[in-house]
Amino acid sequence: MTVVSRFPVIEIFGPTVQGEGMVIGQKTMFIRTAGCDYSCVWCDSAFTWDGSGKKETRMLTAEEIVDELRAVGGNAYSHVTISGGNPALLPRLEQLIERLHDDGIRVALETQGSKWQDWFLLVDELTLSPKPPSSTMTTDWVALDAIVSKLTAGERDFSLKVVVFDEADLRYAISVHRRYGNVAFFLQAGNDDVKESDTTTLLHRLMRKYVWLVETVMASEELTNVRVLPQLHAWLWGNKRGY
Amino acid sequence: MTVVSRFPVIEIFGPTVQGEGMVIGQKTMFIRTAGCDYSCVWCDSAFTWDGSGKKETRMLTAEEIVDELRAVGGNAYSHVTISGGNPALLPRLEQLIERLHDDGIRVALETQGSKWQDWFLLVDELTLSPKPPSSTMTTDWVALDAIVSKLTAGERDFSLKVVVFDEADLRYAISVHRRYGNVAFFLQAGNDDVKESDTTTLLHRLMRKYVWLVETVMASEELTNVRVLPQLHAWLWGNKRGY
Ligand code: SF4
Ligand code: SF4
Repeated sequence: MTVVSRFPVIEIFGPTVQGEGMVIGQKTMFIRTAGCDYSCVWCDSAFTWDGSGKKETRMLTAEEIVDELRAVGGNAYSHVTISGGNPALLPRLEQLIERLHDDGIRVALETQGSKWQDWFLLVDELTLSPKPPSSTMTTDWVALDAIVSKLTAGERDFSLKVVVFDEADLRYAISVHRRYGNVAFFLQAGNDDVKESDTTTLLHRLMRKYVWLVETVMASEELTNVRVLPQLHAWLWGNKRGY
Repeated sequence: MTVVSRFPVIEIFGPTVQGEGMVIGQKTMFIRTAGCDYSCVWCDSAFTWDGSGKKETRMLTAEEIVDELRAVGGNAYSHVTISGGNPALLPRLEQLIERLHDDGIRVALETQGSKWQDWFLLVDELTLSPKPPSSTMTTDWVALDAIVSKLTAGERDFSLKVVVFDEADLRYAISVHRRYGNVAFFLQAGNDDVKESDTTTLLHRLMRKYVWLVETVMASEELTNVRVLPQLHAWLWGNKRGY
């Protein structure tokens, strides 16, 4: 008998465009799970783990999540992104992923790569986003090595993404890219002001950051087979939630 | 004996980021070939075919192109994008693609899909960009069907991309997506002002266009498994050439 699990869900919204990473631009629904084993200083979804979103968090089964996706998104989607927090804290998430696959829905998921789950092998587009020094977190290389090995052996479509705020982060990104040379590698310009509420001010700030990152990477001989992307949703909708 | 071909090259630049389509954000060198069998009213590289770029066009061998890429880009790249005009007008382009592969360089190429070339099967990331009604061009569906079939049979990594300016273009995009349902499908917001020289004015105009396209696609039940992207380079650098 399979025990039906419940997952801590803090928000379900969409369809909207995925604003970043390997499937940037994809029309998708978002499921945001609560809880994280990290506490990055610049976390743009701290409400998933700092207690402030506790009241919004509901314990839902896969079936209930699927129903709510349908209620919110109608028939206008065929792709779902699971984000957090860190969804890799949830051991039985295959119940949700398989249920979505049954409906012909593709599933993307992002995690920092601190913990393995066997259901990683079911995810259609998996992003591992190890955190650079500016986050104040420390990477567990042993865990990350094991995850990359298993995904590579499983021939999954996955990628690495490093958010870059400064020179130290860029050096960290280079070391990640060197360590996992064959894995699709994305650099993302960091949003260092997750409180700014004026969208135009934020836009120009984020664009300057992105141009800096582009120019730095273009000049580098250590970063050649890489992709450099912004957070498109932040350019368009600023720091608002639910986009 | 292989005859060494010469190709009409109008510009070689980079490294820069690919601003659009299936490998958006990729660090790449650009080779732009001269000549097109179309004359889209909003063509953003009309200088490749309207006579205005004639003086800049040089007939180069694959070896000369590879040398010039190295002279311009140093050792800071491992990806090359071939664009036009329509590079599919050039029958012996495998000489260039194979030469680049010999150096471990990945090759992307974009064409409107009006003509097949056997070397399409060598391209690492091929974008077919059939032109919507606003271009004033007419799609040759027989040619496009054949191209899509051959690329599918060859198990190549390719995608369809339709630039959308208005409602009629969107209906065209839906018909393309319906016809080739299994092919990765990208929608791109069109730049309807390739003459605007004020970058900020252009940026806000392009962003409005992109938001319109995003909102329209998000509401559609006919466009679910799609990606909607801007032209990132135009947002950043406006209508300047060489970016
Ligand atoms: S790993 Fe992600 S969700 Fe967790 S604290 Fe860092 S940025 Fe926030
Ligand atoms: S097919 Fe491309 S290069 Fe040719 S006219 Fe149209 S937009 Fe310009």
